[in-house]
Amino acid sequence: VNVQNSGIAVVETLDGQKQAIPPVWLMRQAGRYLPEYRAIRERTGSFLDLCSTPELAAELTLQPVRRFGLDAAIVFSDIMMVPMALGQRVTFEADEGPRVDPLIDATSIAALRADIDEAVFAPVYDTIRLVKAALPAGVALIGFCGAPWTLATYMVAGKRTSDHVPVRCFAYAEPSAFTRVIGILNTVSVEYLCGQLAAGADAVQIFDSWAGVLPPDQFAQWCIQPVATIAAQVRSRLPQAKIIAFPRGIGTLLRRYVEWIEPDGIGLDWMIDKNFARDCVPAAMAIQGNLDPVALLAGGAALDRAVDEVLEAFADRPFIFNLGHGVLPQTPIAHVERMLRRVRDR
Amino acid sequence: VNVQNSGIAVVETLDGQKQAIPPVWLMRQAGRYLPEYRAIRERTGSFLDLCSTPELAAELTLQPVRRFGLDAAIVFSDIMMVPMALGQRVTFEADEGPRVDPLIDATSIAALRADIDEAVFAPVYDTIRLVKAALPAGVALIGFCGAPWTLATYMVAGKRTSDHVPVRCFAYAEPSAFTRVIGILNTVSVEYLCGQLAAGADAVQIFDSWAGVLPPDQFAQWCIQPVATIAAQVRSRLPQAKIIAFPRGIGTLLRRYVEWIEPDGIGLDWMIDKNFARDCVPAAMAIQGNLDPVALLAGGAALDRAVDEVLEAFADRPFIFNLGHGVLPQTPIAHVERMLRRVRDR
Repeated sequence: VNVQNSGIAVVETLDGQKQAIPPVWLMRQAGRYLPEYRAIRERTGSFLDLCSTPELAAELTLQPVRRFGLDAAIVFSDIMMVPMALGQRVTFEADEGPRVDPLIDATSIAALRADIDEAVFAPVYDTIRLVKAALPAGVALIGFCGAPWTLATYMVAGKRTSDHVPVRCFAYAEPSAFTRVIGILNTVSVEYLCGQLAAGADAVQIFDSWAGVLPPDQFAQWCIQPVATIAAQVRSRLPQAKIIAFPRGIGTLLRRYVEWIEPDGIGLDWMIDKNFARDCVPAAMAIQGNLDPVALLAGGAALDRAVDEVLEAFADRPFIFNLGHGVLPQTPIAHVERMLRRVRDR
Repeated sequence: VNVQNSGIAVVETLDGQKQAIPPVWLMRQAGRYLPEYRAIRERTGSFLDLCSTPELAAELTLQPVRRFGLDAAIVFSDIMMVPMALGQRVTFEADEGPRVDPLIDATSIAALRADIDEAVFAPVYDTIRLVKAALPAGVALIGFCGAPWTLATYMVAGKRTSDHVPVRCFAYAEPSAFTRVIGILNTVSVEYLCGQLAAGADAVQIFDSWAGVLPPDQFAQWCIQPVATIAAQVRSRLPQAKIIAFPRGIGTLLRRYVEWIEPDGIGLDWMIDKNFARDCVPAAMAIQGNLDPVALLAGGAALDRAVDEVLEAFADRPFIFNLGHGVLPQTPIAHVERMLRRVRDR
């Protein structure tokens, strides 16, 4: 990517160039709130089959861009591709999130593959190639992975858990085994992000959805340090790589996070104090976020107010408009349209 | 309570007097991790029956004090007493938390009782009287209620929800109706806390377990302002009242919270940055917390380290040792004993 003149607003923003109208994309923009998504979902197999079938995954990736004219597509996939590439068997129960064979001890950790199962990643790279060829000029394609901590919450417990007690207890009780798990995830994540960038992704986002449950020291050890390692290693191979980090629940630790990792863009959740965030994030670093997904669900005057607050808070800097978390499945399409008009027609 | 010479370490701490050894109690200290709790639980009816039977509730309240020699008892009850006193029908499904008829519109709000059903609160007051008579000298008795926001998350959704989308959407879409709900909860909470203090509670704690899901402006409106109102009204009736506020997930908003509400004690969760908390909380205000409940579950050297970090962070100020959230049901009793030795034998 020739960054300075890419003509891709999201990439230019990540390069520190403020845009007259902020580019917009939405986390979970391909999803159940779209009838065209549900139509494909209903006539195909499991969620993981979809992720592993490039033609279908590419179509799902393109749907929201086509409908709303968004400034970025994000590859339709799942963070559990990485545990799968390590040989963990993953299934999705309806509305329950992923299920895997839990990592409970040194034996189950030793049973993870030493090499990466490239057959898991190949369809994602193929999806990226298909989407890249089909995207309108100026629209960015974003790849992604889950951060090691967030992946570990599922891999250790075997499922989504409230307050993530199993993984947190494992990290307290067996720090060296847990360090090994995180180290393996770091290595695979670097391969996976570089693979997505090589296949044509213009940027990659690292999702740390469960970062917010850790005390500060452990947050530094299990969330910041791994993501910093991944970002540095990706950049050492691909110096032009654009990296967005999204640590949900970061709160008071934001300054430490952005200073240590130095991502090109920092994704903010909807809870963060916007003034605090402005103080913490260097002026040249892109901020991405942070409309409350529930404001988008509610619509009306409350939505307009919430959109205005986001725009005003980050008007003077490189900024990508997004939600503070994913689009909720019950969100009316008309509310997304209203939000986009509000962002673009000011 | 004659505060200056009460001889009750928790009360003196809440009055700003640092103790040589910090007093200790634990959120959810009466619970499933105790065999004597399980023994009573197995031979009695529903959880709510327990809360409404003073002899049994008093016995459960006293069990952990007896076993561990803790510095405070907290009345065995549930935050859902307040919705029940407003006429909402509450049931508890195993491991699922409470279920209520959801408040979905003006009609269901209008159906809440205009007067309080005192028959719901009376057994709690009786429990307090029984415990007070049985407690050793120097041990505090703490009453409590749920903060209006946390109660509303259950009352609007009808159950526990992830990210609390129903109540948050209701607050966006129907702010005046939601203001009415919060106002009703404020009024009942003042009555309920004053009733508990009149019955003999030495202090009361206001639990805002779900405070952390709101953006800052709404946090101020739906979490800080109601608790400030409740605290002020309780104090206007009972000037000596000692009030602890526990806003889980407070993060960056801690300073605003303590300056606005001015509680006697501020309960901190396990995620908060301890240095940040020291900076935000006035030196004479008691801090309560904030050991990670998962460190207590893990035990061993990790527990010792975590205990030491808490003690060292708050050694120079009025401080009540506690967890950052409730005791987890699978916590070994030996770990609680180890923790207490660590706190008391330094």
